Parts: sequence; C-alpha cells; structure tokens
Amino acid sequence: MGYGLLKGKKGIISGALDENSIAWKAALKAKEEGAEIILTNAPIAMRMGEINKLAEMCDAKIVAADATDVADLEKLYREAMDTFGGGVDFVLHSIGMSPNIRKGKEYGDLNYDWYMKSIDVSALSFHKFMAVAEKLDAINEWGSVVGLSYIAAQRTFSFYTDMADAKAVLESIGRSYGYRYGKAKNVRVNTISQSPTKTTAGTGIGGFNAFYEYAEKMSPLGNASAEDCANYIISLFSDYTRMVTMQNLFHDGGYSMTGISAEVLDMITPGE
Amino acid sequence: MGYGLLKGKKGIISGALDENSIAWKAALKAKEEGAEIILTNAPIAMRMGEINKLAEMCDAKIVAADATDVADLEKLYREAMDTFGGGVDFVLHSIGMSPNIRKGKEYGDLNYDWYMKSIDVSALSFHKFMAVAEKLDAINEWGSVVGLSYIAAQRTFSFYTDMADAKAVLESIGRSYGYRYGKAKNVRVNTISQSPTKTTAGTGIGGFNAFYEYAEKMSPLGNASAEDCANYIISLFSDYTRMVTMQNLFHDGGYSMTGISAEVLDMITPGE
Amino acid sequence: MGYGLLKGKKGIISGALDENSIAWKAALKAKEEGAEIILTNAPIAMRMGEINKLAEMCDAKIVAADATDVADLEKLYREAMDTFGGGVDFVLHSIGMSPNIRKGKEYGDLNYDWYMKSIDVSALSFHKFMAVAEKLDAINEWGSVVGLSYIAAQRTFSFYTDMADAKAVLESIGRSYGYRYGKAKNVRVNTISQSPTKTTAGTGIGGFNAFYEYAEKMSPLGNASAEDCANYIISLFSDYTRMVTMQNLFHDGGYSMTGISAEVLDMITPGE
Amino acid sequence: MGYGLLKGKKGIISGALDENSIAWKAALKAKEEGAEIILTNAPIAMRMGEINKLAEMCDAKIVAADATDVADLEKLYREAMDTFGGGVDFVLHSIGMSPNIRKGKEYGDLNYDWYMKSIDVSALSFHKFMAVAEKLDAINEWGSVVGLSYIAAQRTFSFYTDMADAKAVLESIGRSYGYRYGKAKNVRVNTISQSPTKTTAGTGIGGFNAFYEYAEKMSPLGNASAEDCANYIISLFSDYTRMVTMQNLFHDGGYSMTGISAEVLDMITPGE
Repeated sequence: MGYGLLKGKKGIISGALDENSIAWKAALKAKEEGAEIILTNAPIAMRMGEINKLAEMCDAKIVAADATDVADLEKLYREAMDTFGGGVDFVLHSIGMSPNIRKGKEYGDLNYDWYMKSIDVSALSFHKFMAVAEKLDAINEWGSVVGLSYIAAQRTFSFYTDMADAKAVLESIGRSYGYRYGKAKNVRVNTISQSPTKTTAGTGIGGFNAFYEYAEKMSPLGNASAEDCANYIISLFSDYTRMVTMQNLFHDGGYSMTGISAEVLDMITPGE
Repeated sequence: MGYGLLKGKKGIISGALDENSIAWKAALKAKEEGAEIILTNAPIAMRMGEINKLAEMCDAKIVAADATDVADLEKLYREAMDTFGGGVDFVLHSIGMSPNIRKGKEYGDLNYDWYMKSIDVSALSFHKFMAVAEKLDAINEWGSVVGLSYIAAQRTFSFYTDMADAKAVLESIGRSYGYRYGKAKNVRVNTISQSPTKTTAGTGIGGFNAFYEYAEKMSPLGNASAEDCANYIISLFSDYTRMVTMQNLFHDGGYSMTGISAEVLDMITPGE
Repeated sequence: MGYGLLKGKKGIISGALDENSIAWKAALKAKEEGAEIILTNAPIAMRMGEINKLAEMCDAKIVAADATDVADLEKLYREAMDTFGGGVDFVLHSIGMSPNIRKGKEYGDLNYDWYMKSIDVSALSFHKFMAVAEKLDAINEWGSVVGLSYIAAQRTFSFYTDMADAKAVLESIGRSYGYRYGKAKNVRVNTISQSPTKTTAGTGIGGFNAFYEYAEKMSPLGNASAEDCANYIISLFSDYTRMVTMQNLFHDGGYSMTGISAEVLDMITPGE
Repeated sequence: MGYGLLKGKKGIISGALDENSIAWKAALKAKEEGAEIILTNAPIAMRMGEINKLAEMCDAKIVAADATDVADLEKLYREAMDTFGGGVDFVLHSIGMSPNIRKGKEYGDLNYDWYMKSIDVSALSFHKFMAVAEKLDAINEWGSVVGLSYIAAQRTFSFYTDMADAKAVLESIGRSYGYRYGKAKNVRVNTISQSPTKTTAGTGIGGFNAFYEYAEKMSPLGNASAEDCANYIISLFSDYTRMVTMQNLFHDGGYSMTGISAEVLDMITPGE
C-alpha cells in the first residue's frame, strides 16, 4: 500500500530466508511505508537464503546473528543503534526451527536434546531479543515487538509435535516480557497467530499440504497469506495500535473461531 | 495522525453522543484519514447529544435510527448508499444501554423485561446492523464491521450486571455473523474489548471510578483512552487488517493478560 | 457405578424428556448415588415425554414448571423444600430450545421474536433458576448448580444459529451468578460444554448427524455420550469438586483442544 | 470422604515433600478411596522430606526417581508394574522448580541455563512421565494422568518469572500428549490450575503471601486448599470423568473468572 505509516521509524527484521518468508514481505512493506530497517538472520540461514537481494531492495544493512546467542544479539542492537543514531522502534521475531520435525520424530518419540533446541531457537530467542534490548535500552518509548506464532499453542495438531510447546512458550514470553517492557518503556509486545503459510519453513512439515487445504476450506476468508501477514505486522508497528499489548492475535481468515464450515461439512458427507 | 489510511472509503459510525464518546473520536479520525462518513444515533440520544457539532466537523450527514428497529436500519443503509453512490466499507457499532444498571438493580434482582432490553439494544442491534446490510448488499467486498465490547464478557465485574451477558452476546454475534459475512462477501467482523473508558456512558456505572483507577494500575501501559481506541478502530477499518475476523481484540494496555501488577501488589500491602 | 457419592443430598433435575436425555441419565445416576431428587420439566414437554416412567424409576416427585416463569420456579422450589424438609444441594439446568432452528431459519434471516424466545428459554431461565433459589434461600451451603452448554459459545457452527448466542449467555450467567452465589452461600455454578449428543433435541438440528461423525473422528476419545455426561455431572454435584466454580468445563473426549486429528486428515486426503 | 471411589485402582504419585504438599494430601485421599499407590520423588527431595512417614500411612512403596531422567522413570514404572502385577490407572505429576526464582532473578535478568532447568524439571518431565509409560505400556486403558499448573500460564504474575513459561509448556504437553495417549489407549491427560497454595514450595516465592491474601479476597469461594485440590484430583482419577481430556481445569474458588470482587474494590477505595 504505502501510506507512509512507518515514516521516521527504525526497526529490526529477523528471519527473512527467501521471498516466500513472512519476514521478507514484512521487510519490503516496512520499507514501502517509510521505515529504515536492519535485517538479521542466523549465519547458516544467510548462506542458504537470498537475503542480500532483499537487503538491496530495502536499502538495508544485514547483521548476522545467532538468535540464541546473547553476545550476537548485543552486537546486532549495537550496530542498529550506531546505524540509526539511536534506538529502534520495532522488532520482528520470525524465528523457528525444530530438529524433531526435521528428522520426522513423532511426539511420543522426541529426542529431548532436540526438544530443548526447539525451545531455545523458537521461543527463548524471543526473550533474549527483548532482554538484550532492555539492557542496552535499544528500543524507543512506545516501540513495538512482534513474534510469529501458530494456533498449535492452543490446540493439538499432531504433525506439529514439539513446535506446539515452543509456540506456547513464545506466547508466554510475549505476555511476561510485554508486562515488563510495558512498565519500563511503554514498549508493547504481541504475537501473531498466523494461518498455515506456504513458506519454505511451513511446507517442510509433513501433512502440511493437506492441512493447508483443510484450513483454506475452514476459514471464511481463506488462509491469510504471507503478504497479508506483512500488512498486519505493519499495523502493529504503526502508532494506530499503541495500547495493544501482551496479546496473541489470530490472523487467520477466521479459522480459529470457526467450529466447522459448510465446505468442510460437505467434504465429509459427499453422499448427502 | 492522518496518513490517508481510509482514503476513498465510506462508512457508518453509530453511537457518538458527545466529545467523550469513542465513536466521536472515531468519526474525527476517520474523516482525518480521508473517509466519508455518515453518523447515526437513536433519536433520543441525538436530542441529548451534540452530534450536530460533530457532523459539521466531519462534513457528515446524520441519519437518526433506532438500532433495534429493522425498518430504521434499512432507511439508514439506503440513505448511506444514496449519499455515497454505492455500498459502505466500514461500520462502527458503538451502542449499549442497560436499564438495570441505570436503575441500580443488582445482578440477583434484575428486572427481566429490562434485561431483554439490554440484550436487544446492546447486542441484538449488532446482528440487525449486519443482517439488514446483507439483505441490501450494503457493505462492499472486504468491508469491515467493528463492535465495542468489554472484558466482562469473559470475567465477572459485579457492577456491570446484565451488560456482561449483553457483551457475551455481542461477541458471539461477531463470530457467527463474521463467519457468514466472510463467506458471502469477504466482510470481516470483530469486536474490540476496550479498557474502562471515561465516556459519559462509562462513568454512569457505580463503582466505575474506583475500578478505573485499579485498571490503570493493573495495566502496564495504563488504560487505553477513547482516542487510543479510535486509532485502533481506524487500523481495523484499513486494508492492513483484512484477514482478521471473528475476533474479540483486547485493547486495554495489557490489562487482560496481567494477573497482578507490582502497583496493585504494593497497594494491597501498604505496610511491607 | 454407585458409590453413594450423593448420599444425603437432595436435588432438582430439569429437562428429562426421554431416555436419550442427558437429564434422564443424570436422574438415574443421582438416584443410584444415593440422592433424593425432584424432576421438573415444562408442562408441554411433560406431555410429550415419558417422565412419569423416570419418576417411578427414581422414586421422585414431578413438579411441572415453565422455566421462564418466575412464579412457576417459586412453586418448584417451595415444593422441593417441603418435600425434602429443607433446601436442595444440587440443581441441573438442562433446558434449551430455539424456534429459529426448529423452523429452519438461517443465521442471516432470524426471526427476532423467536431469537428472544431462544435467549429466554435457553439462557435467562438459568438466571431465574438461581435468582428464585437465592430469594427463597433454597440451595444449601456448598450446593452445586450445573447448566449444559456447547462449544458453539466459543466457535461458530453455522447449523446452530441463535443457540450459539444463547449458550454464550448461559455461560456468562454461570460466571456472574456463580460469583454472586459463591459469595452469598458458597454455592458453585458451572456449565458443562458437552460433545454433540444423540438426544432427541440434538438430532433435530440439521447437519447434526454429519457433524456428529466428524466430531467423533476429531476427538481422541470419541464423543462423550449422554451417560458419560451424567457421570461427569455427578462428580460436579459431589463434594470432590467444591472449589470449582464459574467455569465452563469441556466434556468432549478432547474435541475442543484438537486442531486436527489423524482421522480427519486422512478423510480429507483420500488419495494420499 | 472415602466412598471407595478408587477401589481396585493403582497409581503413582509424585512430589509429596511434606504434609503441606498437594501430593501428600492426594496420596492420603487415594489410599482412603481404596487405591494402591506408589510414591516417588527426586532423591534429593526425599532426603529433605518426610516421605517415609507418608509411605507408612499409605502402606505404599517409595521409588526414588529423578523425573528428568528417562532411565529413572523406566525403573519407576517397572517397579510399579512388578508391585501391582500390571499397569497403573493413574499418575499424579506434581513437580516444579525454578532456580531463577530460588535465586531471586527477575524476568528481565534470567539465567538461561537455569531457565532450561526450570523447563526440564517442571514441564518436560511431564512428557517423559507419559512417553516412558507409553513405551512400557504402563498405563491401563482409560487411565488418568494429572499435572498441576497455575494461572500464570495465561496471565502474567511478575513474581512467578520463568515458571509462567514452564507452566505454559506443561499445559501444552498435557494437550499434545493427551491427544496421543487418548488415541492409543483412551488414557486422559489434564492439568489442574490450582489456587495459590500454602505449600512449602509456594511460600518460597517472593510476593507470595501478599498475593495469597489478594487471591483469597478475589475468589468468591476463597482460595482452594491443598486438601480441596486432593479431592478434585480424586474425581479426575475416578471413572466419573472419563471423557474429560486435554483440559486445563481451574480449581481456584472462582478466581480465574472474577474480574474484580467487592472485597478488592473496597480494599482499593478505603475512603469511600
């Protein structure tokens, strides 16, 4: 769209792997809305991705950082503050990974070291992003932090295994740090619970495609796309949403509140 | 702010009584963001209020309508469609009234005719606003409908008596009609669960002032004001939130997700 | 089972229409567990039903009462207190009816007088059951009141139309009156959100059978039966659950917390 | 009470430290209701506690097991199956510990190794309890598993720091494993979200005493005690609740559903 909604604002966007990524779209939108941004991703993800292309499109610096590493995050914020000549106004946390899903481990047969890795990468990194920022006073008054979640934090989807638990932690961190950062600096923290999305990460999950179609049929507006999500993220970074905090916000075309849709009912009763 | 976020959009805003009203602020913001609007209120509320002043500020037509009366709502939408030369893009439902609260009836001693009146005015009118619109095809594709709710729909606040039940219905209607209107025309429907707000309506509730201060201390960002709420409403009318539907969205500075705040804990343990 | 769990307790059970009714099973179980009960139903339902047979099996008096009529409810409680020589220890509210569903009206085309009838019969009657009891001091200290609800109060099922709104009110009344009666007499109030159940009422809803099968496949334990529900009700009337109040309790074999089951996933991807 | 509700059932109860423990009371009740039990606790907790006294009262074997250690849990279940001559019917997980709370670390200043320890001990151990049981087929058909949680999983209580995140994981594990074990063996899994309780563990948390009084005033029935909780646990182990699964069940005298009570309102407005 491009209404200048983020004009004058500076932010950090993590997790842009390729053009299917929500973070990729969010970076482009943020730029389009007038923000200055810094991109970050794990060194290994950066080698696989095409983030340099995105950086060029957004006129953005890239700072490699392992989001589980406090020292890396300190470096990230320091570089951001140097670049921007001050604090940041928004942060997008779009980071998640489960070795158990990658290796096809069922929920009853998890590798517990990998489980801890899932929690560390996908959830605890969200805490670190905020704790490091708070210590460095790196987020400006009335800043906005957003993490990406999934409804598996509320209901069970068996193919999602330990990422359900990781998302439950992510949302809990959003609440607890949101309380703290709200008190300290009026910074708001929310998570978006997004439709299943055809990102490179999403489509790697077994059963994903069948479920994607099911969710499409269940949701009155259909599944929200990565681009839709980027728009919603912009609204949460903008000054129109300053008093929304500690929330998990469903952005899913109505999926979460639909018990059953006419389409799904038809699908399961073909003869009637 | 004024980024032209609603440029080209047309809408109906109900419930602006005086300059403390959320609807009043929302009308001003919508105008500021480039929308054309029509104001509506019950004939009796219009006599008490200063809506003519607002209409002038917004360059808006006023159409009197009793929101419980289907014929009145038909007339409202027809006038809107005539005025705008087509359908509307957004509707704000900001209507609520409880005779039981006005008369100081406790929850255990409700007048049941008045109870039905509370439901009819405060909740069923939301259904009528949408059912009439759907029949007249008065809301454009990807339009947005917003109602105003309160956390009493989830938890008990004894001073709120039957309005708690009315808000529960309001939110339920938001879900059910949101499903229907989403399927039919990609129209989204949401309710905002707003902080206690110092509107003329809000301050009429016994115990309100004490509770307002308590909520202020409980919420990490403090209570959201009517003006904050107007900003949030604008974001929900804008194209940044097109896939958010059937949700009840807390706009409360974090109140809903705070178990207890440091301030409240201090308040109750003065000696420690 | 029959452990004497309700020995010495007295109660009122409404809504037993025929042997498929949850209330019917609950009455039998309550008797089996040692309780003395009084049965009640609307005069019209009593003519259609076989409640006399049940009364005989339970050695129970029947008191006809229209649950929307305060005078009838007063008479009911007075007769109960006379019969028992004191107050009651538990009340089951199992009453619901929607003229809009009976007449096949869609949610977008409701008859609003019938809507109010749905609310009055299915929800407000729950308030009246408690308000009348409170005035007559008819429920003993640490008594238990249970109403029957459905997950349509949280998520939309299009075939359930205005009963979704009625159940939202029912649950809200459970919370608000639960607060009040808890303070007054340590009486607890809860609603059970039950699986779709093959009662005479349930199977009258269009789309019910297809949905029943779907819910059966979605729920890891399958749908909870009327008999299962009766057992659960007994536990809530017993002294094992005295501090559970103002809750809506899902009794559904896990349906409410299952995003998608393996069976449903298979059903929608037959070719894979 | 003692109705023989668990007659013929066998179970494992973890976490009984001393006579203030919920698990301690639950063991006594289970015995009273006719169950045979095995007690377990971490070796270090056993040295501090008085579990031998409890074992004597319950005529129960004690098996030391570190709940984070899969091999220990295997040994526990094998001994239980040997002792009982078959599988168990119920399991109580009552295990939680946060080094960050013990050391007084604020939420903004967590030690991340300790954080992982909190997750491992307080939440992942719940998964291990079930995964080990499933592998050894140690829980009988229609068995019941209960974990103890706290409302900090839904709302922020700043003094509870990383235990809020741990409880969010615990509840998520309850849902995900509940789905799995329900499918596999009709075993149900639930968590109880208990009032603040004056256990030795609870009273070790800073701010606990003030909050305990506040919750007492907020809850219409007052705080649920350890003994009340034990009763509720018995109901969940009994056959009266066989279709309740994957739920987080508030057992809190109504606290969770009370926005504000008259007492708290009075407390904050002493002058009025």
